[in-house]
Amino acid sequence: MDIRIPSLLRIKPDTLFKLGKYLRKHGFDRIALCYGEGIEELVGRSIRISRDSSEITVVRQEVVHSNDVTDIMGVAFHLPRGTQAVVAVGGGVAVDAGKYIGFLNQLPVVAVPTAISNDGFASPGASLRVEGQRISAKAAIPFGVVIDTTVIAACPPRFTLSGIGDLISKYSAIADWKLSYHATGEAINDFSAMIALQSVENLVNHPDKSIEDLGFLQLVCGALVMSGVSMEVAGSSRPASGSEHLISHAYDRLAARPRMHGEQVGVATIATTWLQDNPQRDTVLRVLEQTTFLSAIRADPLDRATFLAAIAAAPAVKPGYHTVLSEPGAVERLQAHIAADPLWQDLLA
Amino acid sequence: MDIRIPSLLRIKPDTLFKLGKYLRKHGFDRIALCYGEGIEELVGRSIRISRDSSEITVVRQEVVHSNDVTDIMGVAFHLPRGTQAVVAVGGGVAVDAGKYIGFLNQLPVVAVPTAISNDGFASPGASLRVEGQRISAKAAIPFGVVIDTTVIAACPPRFTLSGIGDLISKYSAIADWKLSYHATGEAINDFSAMIALQSVENLVNHPDKSIEDLGFLQLVCGALVMSGVSMEVAGSSRPASGSEHLISHAYDRLAARPRMHGEQVGVATIATTWLQDNPQRDTVLRVLEQTTFLSAIRADPLDRATFLAAIAAAPAVKPGYHTVLSEPGAVERLQAHIAADPLWQDLLA
Amino acid sequence: MDIRIPSLLRIKPDTLFKLGKYLRKHGFDRIALCYGEGIEELVGRSIRISRDSSEITVVRQEVVHSNDVTDIMGVAFHLPRGTQAVVAVGGGVAVDAGKYIGFLNQLPVVAVPTAISNDGFASPGASLRVEGQRISAKAAIPFGVVIDTTVIAACPPRFTLSGIGDLISKYSAIADWKLSYHATGEAINDFSAMIALQSVENLVNHPDKSIEDLGFLQLVCGALVMSGVSMEVAGSSRPASGSEHLISHAYDRLAARPRMHGEQVGVATIATTWLQDNPQRDTVLRVLEQTTFLSAIRADPLDRATFLAAIAAAPAVKPGYHTVLSEPGAVERLQAHIAADPLWQDLLA
Amino acid sequence: MDIRIPSLLRIKPDTLFKLGKYLRKHGFDRIALCYGEGIEELVGRSIRISRDSSEITVVRQEVVHSNDVTDIMGVAFHLPRGTQAVVAVGGGVAVDAGKYIGFLNQLPVVAVPTAISNDGFASPGASLRVEGQRISAKAAIPFGVVIDTTVIAACPPRFTLSGIGDLISKYSAIADWKLSYHATGEAINDFSAMIALQSVENLVNHPDKSIEDLGFLQLVCGALVMSGVSMEVAGSSRPASGSEHLISHAYDRLAARPRMHGEQVGVATIATTWLQDNPQRDTVLRVLEQTTFLSAIRADPLDRATFLAAIAAAPAVKPGYHTVLSEPGAVERLQAHIAADPLWQDLLA
Repeated sequence: MDIRIPSLLRIKPDTLFKLGKYLRKHGFDRIALCYGEGIEELVGRSIRISRDSSEITVVRQEVVHSNDVTDIMGVAFHLPRGTQAVVAVGGGVAVDAGKYIGFLNQLPVVAVPTAISNDGFASPGASLRVEGQRISAKAAIPFGVVIDTTVIAACPPRFTLSGIGDLISKYSAIADWKLSYHATGEAINDFSAMIALQSVENLVNHPDKSIEDLGFLQLVCGALVMSGVSMEVAGSSRPASGSEHLISHAYDRLAARPRMHGEQVGVATIATTWLQDNPQRDTVLRVLEQTTFLSAIRADPLDRATFLAAIAAAPAVKPGYHTVLSEPGAVERLQAHIAADPLWQDLLA
Repeated sequence: MDIRIPSLLRIKPDTLFKLGKYLRKHGFDRIALCYGEGIEELVGRSIRISRDSSEITVVRQEVVHSNDVTDIMGVAFHLPRGTQAVVAVGGGVAVDAGKYIGFLNQLPVVAVPTAISNDGFASPGASLRVEGQRISAKAAIPFGVVIDTTVIAACPPRFTLSGIGDLISKYSAIADWKLSYHATGEAINDFSAMIALQSVENLVNHPDKSIEDLGFLQLVCGALVMSGVSMEVAGSSRPASGSEHLISHAYDRLAARPRMHGEQVGVATIATTWLQDNPQRDTVLRVLEQTTFLSAIRADPLDRATFLAAIAAAPAVKPGYHTVLSEPGAVERLQAHIAADPLWQDLLA
Repeated sequence: MDIRIPSLLRIKPDTLFKLGKYLRKHGFDRIALCYGEGIEELVGRSIRISRDSSEITVVRQEVVHSNDVTDIMGVAFHLPRGTQAVVAVGGGVAVDAGKYIGFLNQLPVVAVPTAISNDGFASPGASLRVEGQRISAKAAIPFGVVIDTTVIAACPPRFTLSGIGDLISKYSAIADWKLSYHATGEAINDFSAMIALQSVENLVNHPDKSIEDLGFLQLVCGALVMSGVSMEVAGSSRPASGSEHLISHAYDRLAARPRMHGEQVGVATIATTWLQDNPQRDTVLRVLEQTTFLSAIRADPLDRATFLAAIAAAPAVKPGYHTVLSEPGAVERLQAHIAADPLWQDLLA
Repeated sequence: MDIRIPSLLRIKPDTLFKLGKYLRKHGFDRIALCYGEGIEELVGRSIRISRDSSEITVVRQEVVHSNDVTDIMGVAFHLPRGTQAVVAVGGGVAVDAGKYIGFLNQLPVVAVPTAISNDGFASPGASLRVEGQRISAKAAIPFGVVIDTTVIAACPPRFTLSGIGDLISKYSAIADWKLSYHATGEAINDFSAMIALQSVENLVNHPDKSIEDLGFLQLVCGALVMSGVSMEVAGSSRPASGSEHLISHAYDRLAARPRMHGEQVGVATIATTWLQDNPQRDTVLRVLEQTTFLSAIRADPLDRATFLAAIAAAPAVKPGYHTVLSEPGAVERLQAHIAADPLWQDLLA
């Protein structure tokens, strides 16, 4: 089985100053550069210095304001002849747009996430908007991922905590995959499951779980990359997305004030691992506590009614996608548990 | 970058009883079956039951007595037309032979190691003998790896301890790779290094490091598979083989009584990580202690004079392969350290 | 060098009645079906019969009215989960749309052209409209090409003659490629050039060049497929598109009444092969005469002033794309020749 | 469907003088060089000049005396570290050996045939000897094929005539493939069949069929390359080997004095196309006559008794391989025809 992995991977402090060197080493000297909103102000200087010293020509530079597919095509179909790669610097929107611009031109993409709020930057898909609606489009896994951990460490904590919530959800997602295998015969890919879990377990076992620690952040980034690779191996988002993601998607639609993807997913994982009777549930709770994820949620709880409604709505989000919530009575059992268990008192309000 | 990974991966108790089912699921019903010496007596019954219940036809069955390339070709060039896969059950010799038979016929290989004394079973190469000399031949990463952890648990402890020694050597090998990058400009593949280290770190962080624990064994097996994949990603054995492997190869040639590959490599890693001033050296020692690797060595130490000579001979084993031993005075410093440090008193005799 | 070729290829009479059988044989039983305008009326009955007898489920059926990218995305991003392939039946617009719907979903595409007016159906790209402008987008070479030569034989002759014009232009395109190699060092791919020319030469050497002859049509279709493959091998349209295509593109923009692509390209090839002093020019003229291409043009000549203007405008169509027209004075020499040479009297008016 | 094709292809006069340039262009500057017996004397000077002017280092040079697999491995497993490609210059034996040395090391091979007596030089296999027996081993299609047509033109005519015999046999082989499809359901690959036939048809239609004509030789070489590619596409030798090859293999075993492979195959094709009632039989006879193939055979006929015995023995050469000879009574009918038809009077003696 042949899979595609990033050819260029650098996760450490001050990589932005070497971006030009990395590009040249891989044969790219004419690039299209996409910045997220406000990102050039943040990190543009490092990138300009690096670009100039490595003599990289930016044949087109663009600030990405949205992941709307019409905007993306406006850029994608007018790249100058001879563009060799697309470099996307910023948060989720900029990286998704850059990935899709690259995909439409069959050009390699170098993702340079400046925040790690979810595992999208290394996945083989792109989250887009088509006529106002969010869709998950197929794309290619990035050619390169370059992360400057000092930039990540300087992000508001919510971003990184959201990324940790997205990572910890693998325990729930893979348990759902196994349930589906037994209930529906859906094929499971052990290699995909193994690398998805291995990367999270590294995190879990790391002695110092401070989101300001560069070593810990390096592990978090590496695990998010491996999450993307596990989806590439599986040929779907199964290893990274189960019932907890369905709850989060439903919450997105129902909530007056949706939260960051990984925040919702992390909270939902506490719920779904209970329902799964998941042996890793204590680990989930421990890691969310130690990283201050839970205290951040307690400081600004999710909306209780919306969360309960999201649980009820979740099974219909992806028809035919078997999870623990597909089992008879599962929704009601989970809702009753949440009402009764003191843990949930201050996570929801 | 496209890499090849095993399409079939099963590591858990009692997989031998399901081997036929796995083969059929992947479209193989006509196979060549290679057993190592004495292996059919050990596990043949499970495999026959599984083969029969899944209606797999064994078009050729062979007991592998050696990894001599002439013997291997005698089998390889006479496989019946219509053979769909080669299944190799046994230790290193049987799996190497099976891998090469498959490679010469461009057929998928399913490796079923019955002992895990090194990381060869999932690597993209094969250790062969050509005119009496050991060589590392190119081959393909196996299509499948199936490991029955109850079989592994029943092995003599030395085998599994040897596998752990081979795994822990990644810390030394990757440090050498980085040294070579700085000293010679040799390209380093961060993705390869990441997956090689991640799998070892899982092991290191596992609370219960008993080689009788099926959960721990599953981690060890998974890490050995990832070691093979890391070599596939790197396109060489760099992530899995540094100065400590050179010492072991030299010891093989010099010793009256060579030990298992992973035993030698594990001991050598204690030496090379000292020379590298490797921050993971304490981890190496702790894991080797906790798994009883060190007590097994103490019960039957390596030969002191041979080990010191092997250090001196190591740099010449692979000319042009930069490691910490390539640095001026490195051999002498290491020899002096070993003579002086009490740790080495009972590892060598 | 790895290239992609169609896995399914059937060019003969009455293949439409076997389309369902072919699909099932390749593992597709849930397809999206795109018809060109008016095509279902023409061939829908054969396809329905075949679909039903092979129990193929059409999960989505669509009539394609345009190759506008917004329309295409409206379909592409809403294919039902579980769609296994996109089958596109019709002329250039339907096949281009189908190819792009497949590309955006990374699904295999089966092209079923009902007319062969150009070589686009088997190429790795798609001609689209973006905000009213025609662009050449990257896509993938079709998984399958199924052509029913009885359907092709029943087309109005202009379509097939246009296809022949597009084919004969290879002589001009490849001569331009070689010129560019010598003038600019642009890499030439001999394998690509060889298969592009071989397929045309088969046509040229066929004794009976009647566009009603099923055997001859089979050769024409095969040559158009090989033209697509030659572009895949080259990684660009170089083997199939030189100065004669630039003239045709310019004519498209300048003409009050543009003709079919291959008609323009065929006429332009007569001009550019003169300028190239191309040894195959007599062959070009002979084949265009024997197939009745030239008599069809004489019956309805191109516009003289527009054609001369198109020659002048051609070099600017693709900046940096070296052809015989890039040489100093080439445009003027060609214009003067056309004014003077009696051959052109009745091809232009 | 992904297939591998030669990345480097040059067929024209005086390519030997540019071999070094071609190698460097593809990134090879450290090569292993295999000459056939007597070949260095023949063309070594051109190659040395080219090698030196392009600064190519020959890290190992070898004269190939046989295609015995033990000899080949003696070279293959001792190539110097850092060898980038294997270049094989000579006839069938040297090219087969070079291809296999490359395959065992997973290195690219550049085939430089100095005679074109069969289609082996561009095929994805290698003809070897294992313990004295001839076997067809799997290998890889060459990375490059470089043919100097002035060298080919200077060969004794028998070599080129043999190549033409091998080419013309495609008509027989593909008819057998179709027979097998109808009789046994064996899958047929239309793309493979198309490119196999297209290349032969170019030859057939070429006005001047003189084996001294450089243009005609270029076509013959191109067609032999496409024959290799057609086997790569099919994943087997089906498009290039049918009943006529079985007869030739049987003749090899039975004859006191076997002839060149293509000579035997060409004569056998006359026989098998009669049995197939093959519509191309007249074409076969015409081409063999025009190229002087038949007059060369008449000057030195095959042995009648051996040829008749070979027909009888052919069906057992590859058990389970359906051809026209598998049909009941086919052998007897063909033998009776040969006895009676005057055409055979002077081809056999």
